[in-house]
Amino acid sequence: MSGTRFSLNQWTARHWPLPELVETCAREGVGAGLWREPVREYGLERAAKLVRDAGLDVTSLCRGGFFTTAAGLDDNRRAIDEAAALGTAVLVLVSGGLPDGSRDLDGARERVADALAELAPYAGERGVRLAIEPLHPMYCSDRCVISTLGQAIDLASRFPVEQVGVCVDTYHVWWDPAVWADIARAPGRIAAFQVADWTTPLPAGVLTGRGLLGDGCVELRRFREAVDTAGYTGPVEAEIFNEELWAMPGEDVLALVRARYEEHVV
Amino acid sequence: MSGTRFSLNQWTARHWPLPELVETCAREGVGAGLWREPVREYGLERAAKLVRDAGLDVTSLCRGGFFTTAAGLDDNRRAIDEAAALGTAVLVLVSGGLPDGSRDLDGARERVADALAELAPYAGERGVRLAIEPLHPMYCSDRCVISTLGQAIDLASRFPVEQVGVCVDTYHVWWDPAVWADIARAPGRIAAFQVADWTTPLPAGVLTGRGLLGDGCVELRRFREAVDTAGYTGPVEAEIFNEELWAMPGEDVLALVRARYEEHVV
Repeated sequence: MSGTRFSLNQWTARHWPLPELVETCAREGVGAGLWREPVREYGLERAAKLVRDAGLDVTSLCRGGFFTTAAGLDDNRRAIDEAAALGTAVLVLVSGGLPDGSRDLDGARERVADALAELAPYAGERGVRLAIEPLHPMYCSDRCVISTLGQAIDLASRFPVEQVGVCVDTYHVWWDPAVWADIARAPGRIAAFQVADWTTPLPAGVLTGRGLLGDGCVELRRFREAVDTAGYTGPVEAEIFNEELWAMPGEDVLALVRARYEEHVV
Repeated sequence: MSGTRFSLNQWTARHWPLPELVETCAREGVGAGLWREPVREYGLERAAKLVRDAGLDVTSLCRGGFFTTAAGLDDNRRAIDEAAALGTAVLVLVSGGLPDGSRDLDGARERVADALAELAPYAGERGVRLAIEPLHPMYCSDRCVISTLGQAIDLASRFPVEQVGVCVDTYHVWWDPAVWADIARAPGRIAAFQVADWTTPLPAGVLTGRGLLGDGCVELRRFREAVDTAGYTGPVEAEIFNEELWAMPGEDVLALVRARYEEHVV
């Protein structure tokens, strides 16, 4: 495998055609985190063959989850199957927000635990680990009722460590006064590590506007050192939802983000 | 005093001229939380006389703080003096975000504690209680490094209970899985209670867009019951930054928000 831990999450170079992304990342010796939608659009079997032929390290598949709203368990089992087909060991899970019109946040959180109980053995049998990703609390109502790393770790800890872990994404957890202690208490539970920076002002809808590494206020290197100290040895995925990056050619995105990674994360 | 705990925060009816707001709230038997900027614009002494003459219950003054960036201790001492002049027992404090270009979040949080140590006795001598308000984590970098109720309570607990408390604002803390336990461990520390609802999508800049009571997903009544159970007996201030409310005549805002309060909070 490559000598770098750097991995490009596909959504960072959102409009890069899959074959070019796969071929370039493999040639450059970096991994890539793939997304279900573009993989399905290209065709799962074709995508899996691309990846195998290129020798790409698929560092994660994004994403399963959305238990509390639309997606059912069947769709999540498919996501696990897709991860296995792509040869990645990690399926990132975003839990989903509150059902329309609901105010039952505690209930929604419990439903996430129920869904994990159904899915964890299925994932384990296929060599895929579920990575619960806490999203920033500003997404709590509409995307993800799991809002802190502590909450994600507590949830993961109900299941065997090889079946369920957490995804630490700096963009979502950097503000949390408990985050350093939570990372330290999570040895073995960190299944994925993603980096993006925090910048303001936030755009309408707050879905884009994530900062290029080094452009914001997140202590990126401190996070990388903290997960390392907790025993995490896996890839470092740059996942940056940013309109300016999306307007650039994929190869340029890769070069720019990787350079920023070397400067601010390594 | 009035038979209701309802209080209208001035920023909810942001463009209502101060004399009308004071006179109407007093006549309706509700309190009002005032803001420093419009009070200064009107003149502190004149505003204090208005309030006294009308017999208005000033439930808080917003806001001191911003320790980590622009405002110095002198400005905060002035805020305490203004609160005393207006006859309110509560000065709401928003800590401030990270200094420009800084990534030292721990340091910024420690500076808040240092500033409180300077100000708390000064406030206590004037009969004013400092209410540390945690803001939603989406404001952590640019407005308020105090991001959870637990953090605010821990900070307040370093000081005498009559000098420093916390402000529980449902908009900022509703997502927090620890919030119910934190409210329960805060007896005597809750200095102010503010209500607004959470709705999405968030507007650009995320400063406005707070939901009218009942329009969002916050368990407002559960919060009111929780602070009551923790021993809080003070006013319930509706503080809703919302462009639609700002476009309405003040008297209509008061009637609408109070009706929603009766329906969703009482």
